[in-house]
Amino acid sequence: MINAIGREIPDLVEGYGAVKPFAGAFHTVPDMKRHAPRVKAVRPGENKVLSSLEEVFRRIGIKDGMTLSFHHHFRNGDGVVNMVLATAAKLGLKDLKIALSSVFPVHAPLVDHIKHGVVTGLDTNYISGPVAQAISRGILARPVILRTHGGRARAIECGQLKIDVAFIAAPAADDFGNINGVEGPAACGSLGYAFPDAEYADYVVAVTDHLVEYPLSPVSIPQTRVDYVVKVDCIGDPKGIVSGTTRITKDPVGLKIANTAARVIEAAGLIKEGFSFQTGAGGASLATAHFVRQMMERAGITGSFALGGITGYMVDMLEKGLFKKIIDVQGFDLEAVRSIATNPNHLEVSASFYASPFNAGCAVNKLDAVILGATEIDTDFNVNVVTGSDGVIMGGSGGHSDAAAGAKVTIVVANLLRGRLPIIVDKVLTATTPGETIDVLVTERGVAVNPRRGDLREQLVAAGLPVKEIHELKALAEKIAGIPAKAPAGGRVIAVVEYRDGTIIDVVRQR
Amino acid sequence: MINAIGREIPDLVEGYGAVKPFAGAFHTVPDMKRHAPRVKAVRPGENKVLSSLEEVFRRIGIKDGMTLSFHHHFRNGDGVVNMVLATAAKLGLKDLKIALSSVFPVHAPLVDHIKHGVVTGLDTNYISGPVAQAISRGILARPVILRTHGGRARAIECGQLKIDVAFIAAPAADDFGNINGVEGPAACGSLGYAFPDAEYADYVVAVTDHLVEYPLSPVSIPQTRVDYVVKVDCIGDPKGIVSGTTRITKDPVGLKIANTAARVIEAAGLIKEGFSFQTGAGGASLATAHFVRQMMERAGITGSFALGGITGYMVDMLEKGLFKKIIDVQGFDLEAVRSIATNPNHLEVSASFYASPFNAGCAVNKLDAVILGATEIDTDFNVNVVTGSDGVIMGGSGGHSDAAAGAKVTIVVANLLRGRLPIIVDKVLTATTPGETIDVLVTERGVAVNPRRGDLREQLVAAGLPVKEIHELKALAEKIAGIPAKAPAGGRVIAVVEYRDGTIIDVVRQR
Repeated sequence: MINAIGREIPDLVEGYGAVKPFAGAFHTVPDMKRHAPRVKAVRPGENKVLSSLEEVFRRIGIKDGMTLSFHHHFRNGDGVVNMVLATAAKLGLKDLKIALSSVFPVHAPLVDHIKHGVVTGLDTNYISGPVAQAISRGILARPVILRTHGGRARAIECGQLKIDVAFIAAPAADDFGNINGVEGPAACGSLGYAFPDAEYADYVVAVTDHLVEYPLSPVSIPQTRVDYVVKVDCIGDPKGIVSGTTRITKDPVGLKIANTAARVIEAAGLIKEGFSFQTGAGGASLATAHFVRQMMERAGITGSFALGGITGYMVDMLEKGLFKKIIDVQGFDLEAVRSIATNPNHLEVSASFYASPFNAGCAVNKLDAVILGATEIDTDFNVNVVTGSDGVIMGGSGGHSDAAAGAKVTIVVANLLRGRLPIIVDKVLTATTPGETIDVLVTERGVAVNPRRGDLREQLVAAGLPVKEIHELKALAEKIAGIPAKAPAGGRVIAVVEYRDGTIIDVVRQR
Repeated sequence: MINAIGREIPDLVEGYGAVKPFAGAFHTVPDMKRHAPRVKAVRPGENKVLSSLEEVFRRIGIKDGMTLSFHHHFRNGDGVVNMVLATAAKLGLKDLKIALSSVFPVHAPLVDHIKHGVVTGLDTNYISGPVAQAISRGILARPVILRTHGGRARAIECGQLKIDVAFIAAPAADDFGNINGVEGPAACGSLGYAFPDAEYADYVVAVTDHLVEYPLSPVSIPQTRVDYVVKVDCIGDPKGIVSGTTRITKDPVGLKIANTAARVIEAAGLIKEGFSFQTGAGGASLATAHFVRQMMERAGITGSFALGGITGYMVDMLEKGLFKKIIDVQGFDLEAVRSIATNPNHLEVSASFYASPFNAGCAVNKLDAVILGATEIDTDFNVNVVTGSDGVIMGGSGGHSDAAAGAKVTIVVANLLRGRLPIIVDKVLTATTPGETIDVLVTERGVAVNPRRGDLREQLVAAGLPVKEIHELKALAEKIAGIPAKAPAGGRVIAVVEYRDGTIIDVVRQR
C-alpha cells in the first residue's frame, strides 16, 4: 500500500505484524486506554538490594522471549546494556527483545548476542556503529522497530511496547530504589528517557555504582516503581556521554548556513520576549545557537526555554540570562550534567513530557524554532535521518520528527552536498520526518521554504534572505555533483520506521 | 460476616456492593493491573486556558453521575471544592460523586448540595465539622467510603476509585498546565495527595489564582496530565492550612505522656544514626517530638528523615541538622510551605509514595517510629479514630493505619480518659487501625505493650518504663470514671471503613 507521503509499504511485515500506514502528521487520534502494568506490593522490612545481576534474573524469573528495556543517557559510555546481556547469555537465555532508546558503538557486543540467538528483537530510536551495520546486513530475522523519542514514550504508555523488565542505569540510588542522575561517579544528568520504562514496566531494576543512604534526593525515578537495586562496580563512563561534536563548527560553509538559519528565525519574527528554541549538539546546530544568541543580545530579549538534549552552550545561555529555563530530557555533555544538578531553572523531564504526541501536551508543542539535520531531503521536504544514501542504517529519528511536528518554525540545515552527493533528491531513500512538518531548508546556496508556508516565505523574502525553490537548489547541487545513481532496491524489510503516532512512515530494506 | 478482628460486617452494603472483609494487615496480596485511563492528545497550538469553571464543565461535558475529585492541602482554607460544586449546582447537575481526600468545616455547603441531590456520594479519608455531623445523621443514601491516605492512592491506582474529572487547586500554574504548590498568594506546599488524581483521572483541571509564564518550575503535576487551566480570583486562604493546634502542649498530663512516649522510642533502641520518625500536628505529638529531639541532641545523632504531614517543628529539626531529609505529603503550617519551597532536602512526594500498600514500596515502610492518637483503643489494641464513643463521625484514618502498618514501633498516645470516658474499651465502637499494627499504648498512668511484641516489652521493662497490662490500665480508668454505658446500636450503614488494602475493617451506622 501507499501511505500519505507516497511511500510504498507492505500491508504486513513478517515479525512485526499488520502495518498501520502513516496518514499525516496530526491525522491519527488515539482511541485507547493507557497501558496497565501489574500492581505491586512490598511489605515493611522487605529488602530490595540484590548482590548480583544473576540474582536479579533469578528473582524476577527472567525467561526466554521477554522484553528488557534500557535507556541511553550514557550514550557511548554505557556499561549497563552489555553487562545485563552478558548475564543473560551466561544464563543461557534466548529470544530476548531489547528496547534500548538509542544504540551506540559501545553496544557492539549486541551483534554477538544476536548471532547466538540471545537477542532476537530490537526496538530503538537511533542506531549507530557496528550494530547498525549488522542490522542493515540482515543479522536480525525480525525487523527492528525504529521509533522517535516521543513515539517510544507513547508506545510504552499506550501498551504497544510492553516491557517485562526495565534496567535503569542509576548514577545514584538508595536501598529502596529511589534514583537520580545527578550524583555519583557516573552522573549523567537527566534520566528523562527512562521515565516511561520505570512507570510502565512490569519489573524495574536499578543498576548502580553509587548506593547512598535512604532517602536519596532529588528523586528522579521513585521507590514506588523500583523492585530491585543491584550494586555493580561501574555503570558507565561519563566521558562517553560526549559522543560526537559539541563545539561550534569552524568550517566557513557551516558557519554560513548557521548564520542564514539564525536569520530565518529572526525574519520569522521569533526573536522576541519568550522565544523558545531547540538545537542539537552538532557543530552547525551549535553555530546557529551562537548566531541566535547574538541576535537575542542585540534585541535585548530574554528567551523562555531551551529544549531537548542539552549542551554546555545552552547552559551558558541559561546562566547568562538569555533563557529563563532549560527543559532537559538528556545531557549531551558534562556542563549539562553540572547545571541540572545545581540550577533549579534547569528542569529534568520525561520523554513523554518532552515529545509524546499522545498526552495532554508535550514540550515540543511550545517550541518556536528548532534546528534539525538531514542525510537527505526530498522535493516534498520529507527528511531522511535513518539511512545513508546507500540505504545502510546510520542513525534514526531520535527527537527529529517530534520537534519538527511541534515547533512553529522547523529548519533543516544541510550542506548542498553530503560527501559528493546532492542532499536534495526527488525521493528520500528512507522517509523519517514528513515534509508537512518541515518549514525551511537552509543550505549554503540558498533557502527553500515549504510551499505550505507561503506566510513564512514572504517574511524571508522581505528580510532579504536568498529564497529559492527547492527544485532550484536541487538543480544547483546536481550541476556540481551530477545526478546520483539510484540506490539499488534493497532486500527484505529489516526495519520499520514508525512515526511518532505509531503509524509506519517507511521501511528499511536489507543491504 | 465476621472479619479478622472480629467485627461483624454485612456481606453486602447497599450503595457500596459486596464487602471484602479485612483479613489481616498484610494478608491481602494484589492480583490486578493498574488503572488505565483514556489516552489523550493535544496538537501544537491548542489552548488549555478556559475563562470560567462553567466553560470547564461544558468543554469536558461533565454529566450527572460523574465522579469529581479534589485534594485537601488547603484544609480549612480550601476555596475550590465549594466553587466547583456551586458551579455544578448552578448548571443543574445531579448525582455527582465527590472524592475529596479530607473534608473540613469550610466544606459545610456540601451539606446543601447533598440535600438537593447535586452530590450523592462521598469518598474521603477524614471528615470533620458539619458534613461529618450530617453524614452521621444519615443525609446520604449511599454510604460514605472512608479510606486511608495510602488506601486512597491505592484505590485510584488500582481502579477501584475511578475519577472522571480531577480538580486541582493549583497555587501556581502555567498556561500549559504545569502546577506547583510553592508559589503564588495561596502557596500550600506539597501537593502530594493530588498526584494520584492527576495521574489517573480521565480529565484533569488546574484551578489557579496565580497563572505564570511557561514553563513553570518546579513542576509538581506536569502538563502531560492536565487538560484545562482556569484562572479564578482566589483558590483558598493559606491561613486555613493551620487548622487545629500546631504548638507543643502545655498540659502537664500531655507532657508526661509525651515524655514517656519518647522514652519508649529510646528504650526500643531507635535513637541512633539514621532514626526516622513521623508525628502529627497535635500538641501531644509535637511534645513527643520535642522530647525525642532532646534525646537525639544528647546522643549526638542525626536522623534520616521525618515523614508525613509536616509542621514547622520538623522544619526546625531539619534546619538544625537533626534530620537529613523531610518527606512531605502535606504541609501543616506555613513554615512547612516555606521550607519545601526553598530546601532541596525537603521532598514533595505523592500519597502513593507516602503510604500506598500496593506499589514497590512506600515511605511508611521505612519508618522507625510513629506517634498516633486515638479516640478509643480496645484490649486487642484496635484503634478508633473515625467516630466518637457516641458513634458520630469526627475524623478518619488519614495516614493513621498506613503509618501504623509501616513503622517498626507504632505508639498510640492518649489520656486515660477522654472527656469523662475511659479511652480503653473492650471493643472500639468503630475499628480504624487493626491492633496487630499497634505496638504500644502510652497513657499518663502507664504503658501497655501489644502481646505480639514480647521483645519490645522486655526492652521497656529493662528501661524502667511503667509497663502494665492493657486490662490493668482499663481497670484504672474505670475506677476513676466508671464503666461507660454501651452506645446504643446504630441504624443503617452510613459509612464503610476501608483498610488501606481495600478490605472492610468496619462499618459506621446512622445515629
